[in-house]
Amino acid sequence: MTSTDPSEPLHAAEASASLLRAVRIVLVNPSHYGNVGSVARAMKTMGLVDLRLVAPRFADALTHPQAIALATGASDILESARMHATLDEAIGDCEWSAALTARARELAPAELAPRAAAQIAVQASSQGQNAAFVFGSERYGLDNASVIRCLSYCTIPTSPTYSSLNLAMAVQLIAYECHLAVMGQPGAMPPGPTLATHAERELLFAHLERALLALRFLDPEHHTKLMHRLRRLFGKISLERDEINILRGVCTAILENRP
Amino acid sequence: MTSTDPSEPLHAAEASASLLRAVRIVLVNPSHYGNVGSVARAMKTMGLVDLRLVAPRFADALTHPQAIALATGASDILESARMHATLDEAIGDCEWSAALTARARELAPAELAPRAAAQIAVQASSQGQNAAFVFGSERYGLDNASVIRCLSYCTIPTSPTYSSLNLAMAVQLIAYECHLAVMGQPGAMPPGPTLATHAERELLFAHLERALLALRFLDPEHHTKLMHRLRRLFGKISLERDEINILRGVCTAILENRP
Repeated sequence: MTSTDPSEPLHAAEASASLLRAVRIVLVNPSHYGNVGSVARAMKTMGLVDLRLVAPRFADALTHPQAIALATGASDILESARMHATLDEAIGDCEWSAALTARARELAPAELAPRAAAQIAVQASSQGQNAAFVFGSERYGLDNASVIRCLSYCTIPTSPTYSSLNLAMAVQLIAYECHLAVMGQPGAMPPGPTLATHAERELLFAHLERALLALRFLDPEHHTKLMHRLRRLFGKISLERDEINILRGVCTAILENRP
Repeated sequence: MTSTDPSEPLHAAEASASLLRAVRIVLVNPSHYGNVGSVARAMKTMGLVDLRLVAPRFADALTHPQAIALATGASDILESARMHATLDEAIGDCEWSAALTARARELAPAELAPRAAAQIAVQASSQGQNAAFVFGSERYGLDNASVIRCLSYCTIPTSPTYSSLNLAMAVQLIAYECHLAVMGQPGAMPPGPTLATHAERELLFAHLERALLALRFLDPEHHTKLMHRLRRLFGKISLERDEINILRGVCTAILENRP
């Protein structure tokens, strides 16, 4: 920055804050009040504000005194957080999503380190898109069904002998990387092509499955693994809305042309 | 890496572990049992093992059930941790030290970002030195007298409007950066998947074109542009050989099933 306009640092801070507003933290089946509060605090220290809970173990996960106590000054994050019944609902409007998982290397599209994932999320945000980091429950992590619905997956590197990272700690690390990524951003970015949302991608996968079943390419009884491979393959591409339309056009043609 | 010695990844892991053994976490005047336990867990997830407490508020900070509960599987870190009466005693044998603080810019020699500080700590360790990160109490942070005794100081970047980072979270971030710094040391990387060659990709595109023509999805006279879109779509990923085979399987199924 070469200008000396004294209002610029403020503008830069506002621009950073606005970039982080579109980066969402999604907790699937969280089971401890305290962790939900700690997650809110962890987010707020790094400027993240959008928290979603998917089917928490306790319906009052956002309002319980223990959650509020551990959020300390971040109870506003809990107040504005939203509850969803399903992951699809929580990330339906997201162009980009990453599942946090240490497993499922074979299922998910592309493994990203936290730093790279944060840079992608912030870049997506700078182009007016929504980005989500999806975390599983404290005890079990994310189930495979949730992992495969995300566009990418992200593994926080840990010690090979002890990888028991607390949920709020994991959120803290991701939030920190997002904060650093925003600090490293030059500023507003030109808008990119219109990317497909999660919901549009899911419609494609359902369409593809129908078409490939009709083709008898997929075995009606045993095709989960092959569909996972296809999800992984297409998950590596930031599919544009136009491209989804082309691929669905192929699916329609297959379904209309079957013998 | 050109060698194929199967023992190399193990050696690399051992080398990483040994680099992290010389990076010490020092808590000055910690006042909550739970935080001491959470710090132990945070350290262990990233491979750090050397914890020191300087004049904790409670003499049983390392053995209290609450500390052990929050350490979960990391109680060995608490067991091997050492107590010191003064900071000087805790870091006396360290060639390098950094005070974690958001204040005291005017006091300390050189401000480091966590990433840079971690790289210095790990490099020191690789040269047979001891390195310490020094954290203050939950409520007051590090006092100036402690900050100035450290060689450097390190500030974790936070939101300008809410910088209330929990002590164990701060340790987690520093431990994570140390872990990454060790991973960034030249060492073994796991081999990636087998990517398709240019020739294999071209065979896929030719196959795809035949299949989509058979489906009447492509117009025999005017399909150059659409094929370009499909090339561009698949060109965004490094297709693996297996993935090419799956996609060509779909093409074959289309060609065999046409009406």
